[in-house]
Amino acid sequence: MRILGIDPGYGTIGYGIIERERGNLRAIDYGVIQTPPNESLPVRLAMLDEALRKLIEAHKPDAVAVEELFFNTNITTGIKVAEARGVILLCAIRECGNLYEYTPLQVKQALTGMGRAEKKQVQFMVKALLGLKTEPKPDDAADALAVAVCHANTMQYNQREMN
Amino acid sequence: MRILGIDPGYGTIGYGIIERERGNLRAIDYGVIQTPPNESLPVRLAMLDEALRKLIEAHKPDAVAVEELFFNTNITTGIKVAEARGVILLCAIRECGNLYEYTPLQVKQALTGMGRAEKKQVQFMVKALLGLKTEPKPDDAADALAVAVCHANTMQYNQREMN
Repeated sequence: MRILGIDPGYGTIGYGIIERERGNLRAIDYGVIQTPPNESLPVRLAMLDEALRKLIEAHKPDAVAVEELFFNTNITTGIKVAEARGVILLCAIRECGNLYEYTPLQVKQALTGMGRAEKKQVQFMVKALLGLKTEPKPDDAADALAVAVCHANTMQYNQREMN
Repeated sequence: MRILGIDPGYGTIGYGIIERERGNLRAIDYGVIQTPPNESLPVRLAMLDEALRKLIEAHKPDAVAVEELFFNTNITTGIKVAEARGVILLCAIRECGNLYEYTPLQVKQALTGMGRAEKKQVQFMVKALLGLKTEPKPDDAADALAVAVCHANTMQYNQREMN
């Protein structure tokens, strides 16, 4: 089972593709999509849509997991991130069809067992669970891998429950 | 010149198409796109994208004018509206290519000469400027027509300035 995790944004969008085989998780690819700050937001949204479409086409994930927004104090940035997240949801449902959403709390809980875990602990667990030699960089890519791992573990847990 | 005005939303999206010929404005079509509350947000975004695409295809506007968000107190609704607005911007830039954004203040100013005009005054001016017999309903459609009129008048003003 192949999962694409996404950390939403309009300037820098983190992505992480993982695969689960016989209970083991491994990272296939991770990084960031970036859109040029000198372009208008609609043009940047179109670039994001196109880059994400190509990523899904190249890796053919079985599911896409997108982090929900935690609204911070900067409302202007928050609105733009939400506008970009709408484009991400649309692209994911159109190109993959299998879409899941997780709150930052759920991601932290799934990776560390604690909803109030610090960013460093989450990154440490991403590295450990995916058997990476170093912690994945940049942070947006690490966050995207974390959402993907969260989905993989949530699915596994639900399957165990059903058996 | 044909203009499509849009009042963003995720459940009810207002649209209004107007035409300017020799300085006169007239309404071609207006109404609302609605998405079913029992569907997930990504599915509703996909429905919105498809409905808007068909609307642009049918009416072939020269420009699309979208109202900017005025963030109200309900942050959960606000995030969803912003996510839908991202989809609207993407669809408009992709299908029409000529996209303009106006704040609620700019719309009120353009229609009534006052940035703090009440909704009723704006609706009265929409009816008067478009030569309609009654005020357009529902409110979302009237708001969309107002954005379209705002764009038509802003363009006209700029052209006068240039001459």
